[in-house]
Amino acid sequence: MSAPLGFAVIGAGRIGALHARHLAGAVEGARLEAVFDVDEAAARAAAIGGAAALTDLGEALAHPRVDAVVIASPTSAHAEQLRLAAEAGKAIFCEKPVADDLAQTIAAMDAVERAGAPFQIGFNRRFDPAYAELARAIGAGELGKVELFRSQSTDPRPAPEAYIASSAGFFRDSVIHDIDTARFVVGEVERVTALGRVLVDPLYEKYGDVDTSVITLEFASGALGVLMNSRRTVYGHDLRVEVHAERGKLVAEDERATKLWRYDAHGLHGDFFDHFLDRFRDAYRRELQAFVDAVRAGRAPAPGPVDAIETLRVADAATLSLHEGRPVRVDEVTAAPEGAPEAAPAAGVGS
Amino acid sequence: MSAPLGFAVIGAGRIGALHARHLAGAVEGARLEAVFDVDEAAARAAAIGGAAALTDLGEALAHPRVDAVVIASPTSAHAEQLRLAAEAGKAIFCEKPVADDLAQTIAAMDAVERAGAPFQIGFNRRFDPAYAELARAIGAGELGKVELFRSQSTDPRPAPEAYIASSAGFFRDSVIHDIDTARFVVGEVERVTALGRVLVDPLYEKYGDVDTSVITLEFASGALGVLMNSRRTVYGHDLRVEVHAERGKLVAEDERATKLWRYDAHGLHGDFFDHFLDRFRDAYRRELQAFVDAVRAGRAPAPGPVDAIETLRVADAATLSLHEGRPVRVDEVTAAPEGAPEAAPAAGVGS
Amino acid sequence: MSAPLGFAVIGAGRIGALHARHLAGAVEGARLEAVFDVDEAAARAAAIGGAAALTDLGEALAHPRVDAVVIASPTSAHAEQLRLAAEAGKAIFCEKPVADDLAQTIAAMDAVERAGAPFQIGFNRRFDPAYAELARAIGAGELGKVELFRSQSTDPRPAPEAYIASSAGFFRDSVIHDIDTARFVVGEVERVTALGRVLVDPLYEKYGDVDTSVITLEFASGALGVLMNSRRTVYGHDLRVEVHAERGKLVAEDERATKLWRYDAHGLHGDFFDHFLDRFRDAYRRELQAFVDAVRAGRAPAPGPVDAIETLRVADAATLSLHEGRPVRVDEVTAAPEGAPEAAPAAGVGS
Amino acid sequence: MSAPLGFAVIGAGRIGALHARHLAGAVEGARLEAVFDVDEAAARAAAIGGAAALTDLGEALAHPRVDAVVIASPTSAHAEQLRLAAEAGKAIFCEKPVADDLAQTIAAMDAVERAGAPFQIGFNRRFDPAYAELARAIGAGELGKVELFRSQSTDPRPAPEAYIASSAGFFRDSVIHDIDTARFVVGEVERVTALGRVLVDPLYEKYGDVDTSVITLEFASGALGVLMNSRRTVYGHDLRVEVHAERGKLVAEDERATKLWRYDAHGLHGDFFDHFLDRFRDAYRRELQAFVDAVRAGRAPAPGPVDAIETLRVADAATLSLHEGRPVRVDEVTAAPEGAPEAAPAAGVGS
Repeated sequence: MSAPLGFAVIGAGRIGALHARHLAGAVEGARLEAVFDVDEAAARAAAIGGAAALTDLGEALAHPRVDAVVIASPTSAHAEQLRLAAEAGKAIFCEKPVADDLAQTIAAMDAVERAGAPFQIGFNRRFDPAYAELARAIGAGELGKVELFRSQSTDPRPAPEAYIASSAGFFRDSVIHDIDTARFVVGEVERVTALGRVLVDPLYEKYGDVDTSVITLEFASGALGVLMNSRRTVYGHDLRVEVHAERGKLVAEDERATKLWRYDAHGLHGDFFDHFLDRFRDAYRRELQAFVDAVRAGRAPAPGPVDAIETLRVADAATLSLHEGRPVRVDEVTAAPEGAPEAAPAAGVGS
Repeated sequence: MSAPLGFAVIGAGRIGALHARHLAGAVEGARLEAVFDVDEAAARAAAIGGAAALTDLGEALAHPRVDAVVIASPTSAHAEQLRLAAEAGKAIFCEKPVADDLAQTIAAMDAVERAGAPFQIGFNRRFDPAYAELARAIGAGELGKVELFRSQSTDPRPAPEAYIASSAGFFRDSVIHDIDTARFVVGEVERVTALGRVLVDPLYEKYGDVDTSVITLEFASGALGVLMNSRRTVYGHDLRVEVHAERGKLVAEDERATKLWRYDAHGLHGDFFDHFLDRFRDAYRRELQAFVDAVRAGRAPAPGPVDAIETLRVADAATLSLHEGRPVRVDEVTAAPEGAPEAAPAAGVGS
Repeated sequence: MSAPLGFAVIGAGRIGALHARHLAGAVEGARLEAVFDVDEAAARAAAIGGAAALTDLGEALAHPRVDAVVIASPTSAHAEQLRLAAEAGKAIFCEKPVADDLAQTIAAMDAVERAGAPFQIGFNRRFDPAYAELARAIGAGELGKVELFRSQSTDPRPAPEAYIASSAGFFRDSVIHDIDTARFVVGEVERVTALGRVLVDPLYEKYGDVDTSVITLEFASGALGVLMNSRRTVYGHDLRVEVHAERGKLVAEDERATKLWRYDAHGLHGDFFDHFLDRFRDAYRRELQAFVDAVRAGRAPAPGPVDAIETLRVADAATLSLHEGRPVRVDEVTAAPEGAPEAAPAAGVGS
Repeated sequence: MSAPLGFAVIGAGRIGALHARHLAGAVEGARLEAVFDVDEAAARAAAIGGAAALTDLGEALAHPRVDAVVIASPTSAHAEQLRLAAEAGKAIFCEKPVADDLAQTIAAMDAVERAGAPFQIGFNRRFDPAYAELARAIGAGELGKVELFRSQSTDPRPAPEAYIASSAGFFRDSVIHDIDTARFVVGEVERVTALGRVLVDPLYEKYGDVDTSVITLEFASGALGVLMNSRRTVYGHDLRVEVHAERGKLVAEDERATKLWRYDAHGLHGDFFDHFLDRFRDAYRRELQAFVDAVRAGRAPAPGPVDAIETLRVADAATLSLHEGRPVRVDEVTAAPEGAPEAAPAAGVGS
């Protein structure tokens, strides 16, 4: 391997700062060179280990030791930053989602591919050690053909109203992680059937969204799958992936926050992670390590542009299924502006 | 409580013999008085503790100390035996299914109810200690309203061809346990959507059946549910029920065959039950105990006639959904002979 | 196999009644023929399935269909009943302990052996499915030579004063199960070192006993072992056996009371058995099954006389070690009346 | 909080390099300023994020932005480096052990205390999230007084001969972590009784050491404890701490390497960590974070000098007990040169 890859982190919010810290010390073969944020104090706080704190994006992209960028800014800024970084010849790691809808996502991925920029999208669950080992074992055929797949993930509590109001919707924003896991482990999805309810917080109804859902997947391979999601499991994050195959099953259980068990007059007790940054801290580090390793070795990073596009397409097919109360083929969903599905559930989908 | 309840077991096959043994020694307030089977040797082998071994059903029903019967004969004999036992004034415990289709089931339950006979159907999972405690806690509202439900159960391996050929089908024969669990824990189901595949053994296709399925449930309460079933999990039975509710979740995991853990050069290992009679041995005893307790106390046993009927109706709605590729309302399924759904999947449901 | 083995149960208290029920219906190859108790109502309540209820022990032993006895009477009655049953030519299953001290135990076992009576002592943990499989795997050498052994068992709460006052002491009464497990799994013990404390209930100090202990074992094989015991773990029974061997480890964990997990705002919760009759219900049945199988096949049952004697000898060596504050060789303990160790801890062993 | 704490890492071997990486990016409030090693290439490889790579220790200690040092050099160099760093006014984090025997350890701690240098010793298990939470809950009295304590830890395999030959012995080198955990959770130890064997590798006997041990602890509080250790558990590290207290129990189980479960024809399987740097990676980061937080806040870091001394004293008491085959009071062990216990087991301690 050659010299370390120099990085600029674009956007110094909570996740950008975490990426910056990982690049400064936890990722081998990487150097944090610069942090950009329009908020100078935020940039400075995140620019550890001697990195430059910049408020001018052009300066960051022109920095002589910056070979790659991590885009961790608000979604609305991604498209323009992706274009600029691609044109500047940088390798690009971009937080999900690339853009707010399928048409913009496809356009952004086109720009990246035209520039020949190495690109990775931040579907970090692929880098959770258990998810990664599960996908590896299935991909290697260790248990034969997949027959049934299930992914479940939940938040500890519903988001505040401001977040709900600006959210791209439950399927695009949250369930999309489970869709990516399904595609990662089993392969492409042909047809989806979605059921959704507002059972947790009426605010989701106000904004035309759901907070509880069950989505069935029919994979191209013939396997069947289920995604179960909720905006509330009061005990913490609750993630679980199960893959039944010909010769066995693999289960990635949710990790408890510590491995401590407490026994008292009420029985046996364990606890869970409350925040996804704690739950997936290691996955955040590992996804950057994988990106750095791929770029330095001249390999295409993964998940890449096709994953950014196809995962969103499945999410939008689920939204269409929810609206129309019928199974929807994924290839019914195209990026044509007029045909774009809306996040708002149709009348009749309710609590 | 009064005198012990005297029992005749009707049918001395594997399950009848197990019931006879439980009545002879493991169920409080019961006495095994007689065992009927057309095969005299089978009757004699099961008639432990001094019980009479009879090959004449009339004699069993006329036995002066027989207050109750356990019907564990082949399904085709159930309807007539139910009628005779009801007319003889016996309390009746009948193995599932009551009959092969919905019309016959309704007719048999009508006969039982006209005779005023206490009746319980052998949905034994309700009496597994973990399932029972789960349903109790949910029924008592300890975790608030149910939002998501999942039941999974699998067999270790597909059945032999003779069994497949004579089976009432995957949904009526096997998935029906999960449907009963759903009704037991959450309540009535309004709409079902079924996906089915032949992924395990092509024999199921030959007989117009499936061996792998995912069924979504929309409950009258607004909750959503999923049933996942397969004819093959090579490591043994794999049962799991999960109920997400407002204030928490309950999970009944599959019990391992022993609580022994083995650690060796390949890691950590546990094992599972291979046979449902081992897995549910305790539930078989407990369901009879509950029946005896109810009859002696003058309470209606449960699950009763409505459970025999409504659980089958949901199974048949799932079959209809599988055939027609659409969500089906449970009340679309009636017992009218001409409208009875067929177990055979339509063309296009495949591997 | 030949005809069923006819049984008389001697003593119809809680455990005798459980044995009677198992013999009536749950043990293959056995018939419950008679129940003896000086309390006629107790005898009658336990004499299910048509067995005779007797208040005359001679009558029970003279019963023409009684081939075997289960002695479940108070310990003080064991010696005489063992002698009578042995002289009457019965196979004998006797609850532990055989007698209150080593001299009497040796005398009783001599009488049994002189009469040639098949004999089994009720160390029921050997028949817990996990303990049994653990011992089998170790005995078969599947993991190589044992290096470290640990057994832990605790009661949910201290006993009432009347029980403490009449108890043979913590080591002879309770820790003896862990000693038997150690001998069963690893083999004979050469030397013991005991530490004991009164940390749970000062009543144990009043009666010269301890309620918390750690005992180290040096096995003849070279392996090392530890027994940890307490009269109080508020969440229920807590049993665990660990065996480290050359090529791995086996762990028999305490079984939870149900396999149900509850997740709520305080995390994840499970529960434990509160009563040993619930915890070991299956072991009670299986030990009788093993006894019946051995007697019918003409094999010597196990655990037998040597286990009754040697396990008690190790318990008494532990008491001597506790008193004298030094490691004690097991062969220092003999049954000579003047040398019998006392249960009372010496001055200086305290809370 | 004030400015970041500038660090020099002294010794750029495997553990020093890990500390350097954590200081560069993973520890808040810290900056990696310099790495010292006599091997310039090693220093350079570890000096990430722009830190200076130095081969002159004086230069590292004179560095204007170095406020603190991490000593991760070979044990034989610790004493001199500790003295120099203390005299240079640095805050000191030192890997365990401080020195090879108790006399040298006491002398080194005296030097540190005379200089008033903040000091922390690298007993990293205290910072494992489960160990830390366990100690916090016990310290807060959440479960009442401790009654029984157990700590177990094992290596996957014995060390190579070169390591064994130069090792300070099993108790001082490996069991010392369990002793520190005992002191951390329960408090000071009054008396120890040690049993040791060579069961894994005869090389340990050649060098007068043992590879398998059971040590009982009598705490000043009246609680009893057990340490179980082995140089070989083929499946990986196996760590477990159990604390029984008045109102319950806490268990810190060994963390599996991933949370993935595999079910196949042989049952259910999980896996373990093979290397302690993987097992305790998070604890290595957290111990430095705690050190940085304490120094910046002007608090004394912990574990400190008294822990370095008293933990070693208990280990040496265990060695004395092993040699003399008797319980040993911890205060029998003093640092007087002529009375220093030897690591070599006496004749008669064998396989």
